[in-house]
Amino acid sequence: MLDRLRVVLVSPRNPLNIGAAARAMSNFGFSRLRVVVSYELAFREARSAVGAPQILQEADEFETLAEAIQDCSLVVGTTAVGRRQLVQPLKRLEEGCARIRDHIPHEPAALVFGSEKRGLSKADLSHCHWLMRIPTRETNISMNLGQAVAVCLYELIRQDPVPDQAVTPHASAAQLERMTDALIDAMGASGYIKPGAENSSLQKARRMIRRMELSGEDAETWTGTLAKIVLALRRKKEG
Amino acid sequence: MLDRLRVVLVSPRNPLNIGAAARAMSNFGFSRLRVVVSYELAFREARSAVGAPQILQEADEFETLAEAIQDCSLVVGTTAVGRRQLVQPLKRLEEGCARIRDHIPHEPAALVFGSEKRGLSKADLSHCHWLMRIPTRETNISMNLGQAVAVCLYELIRQDPVPDQAVTPHASAAQLERMTDALIDAMGASGYIKPGAENSSLQKARRMIRRMELSGEDAETWTGTLAKIVLALRRKKEG
Repeated sequence: MLDRLRVVLVSPRNPLNIGAAARAMSNFGFSRLRVVVSYELAFREARSAVGAPQILQEADEFETLAEAIQDCSLVVGTTAVGRRQLVQPLKRLEEGCARIRDHIPHEPAALVFGSEKRGLSKADLSHCHWLMRIPTRETNISMNLGQAVAVCLYELIRQDPVPDQAVTPHASAAQLERMTDALIDAMGASGYIKPGAENSSLQKARRMIRRMELSGEDAETWTGTLAKIVLALRRKKEG
Repeated sequence: MLDRLRVVLVSPRNPLNIGAAARAMSNFGFSRLRVVVSYELAFREARSAVGAPQILQEADEFETLAEAIQDCSLVVGTTAVGRRQLVQPLKRLEEGCARIRDHIPHEPAALVFGSEKRGLSKADLSHCHWLMRIPTRETNISMNLGQAVAVCLYELIRQDPVPDQAVTPHASAAQLERMTDALIDAMGASGYIKPGAENSSLQKARRMIRRMELSGEDAETWTGTLAKIVLALRRKKEG
């Protein structure tokens, strides 16, 4: 689905920025890069750089923006300027990306970035259905091209499900209860709890352990540690 | 409030990345950069670059991470690796940034980025309360440093209210209704609607105009245009 988004760079001047845009695409799972080449040398240099991403090798070259977007039924421009200077609708990045996400399962869309110095020209902008702006501060509104591409593509994939391994599994209630029991045993065996006070201590311990927001692994480690302590305490008593 | 976040770069090697990190900070309204300097030359070069942001001039230098974070009551590391290799809790970027946002109105926090080549060392990671990972794809998990900083800071400010000028004001119901009336008048005056069919045509026109999702300005332009058309049509009839 992500390969239905064409990332279009219009007249980039700096080979490092072209490379950075391609790298961000690769980081976030996009593959279709199109470049409107006005600075032939910059494009050649970016392509021949050591470690240039595959995406850059496979990028399509165009002479005009009109050609670069011809198969796209949604064309979204990015801009640094505010509403006052614009004649086109401007959407928040979040809202705009949500619309693009709705579009690309069905039809191709283009996300268009202007050159480092001037951004998109009025003529370029007139090809766009609407525009998006990254919410930068007025005092330094203009972003580096590679960083702007990274932020837009991040926003596009943000709401995708995250792979399992990136989530820390929290301790289950059963794990936490085993740990609580082990703690109470340890408190009892060490004489920390007076006989008869077990019940109120249990509830205190239970609440305290829940506040710790433990991972499953950490809860197991705690339970094991406490069990050993109890064993040692009992052996000492008996010995 | 955002100046309570310290962005900490540990041993950056590439002056361009140091500059890009500072630029992203400036774009998103952060000001406190701290650098653990292992590559003196890279840091000097970044600082003396043409157009280096003010933030970089004012960055604090440290010899160790421990010193760079000493006043912070929350220390968050960033990492490209997945859960399996980590001994610390890993949070999704969104969740992690929400926690940082909750923290910095009250106390300082540090957001720590490792060097381009190796990321944060195990010793560095042990200073962190927990870690965040940008949801990059397994096939190319590792981000450029400047881009990683930009994405994290964007996520931190994402939920801030956006300045008014970035929002296109939609047409009000009254504006749309004036436009609808003007369209019906134009349809009637041009003979497009047969006498007696005005009512069903009105409803069709009303629905069609609502589907256009017009801005207030565009609705006014349409209404003005249609009014002129009606005037011209009536004059022709009378003439």
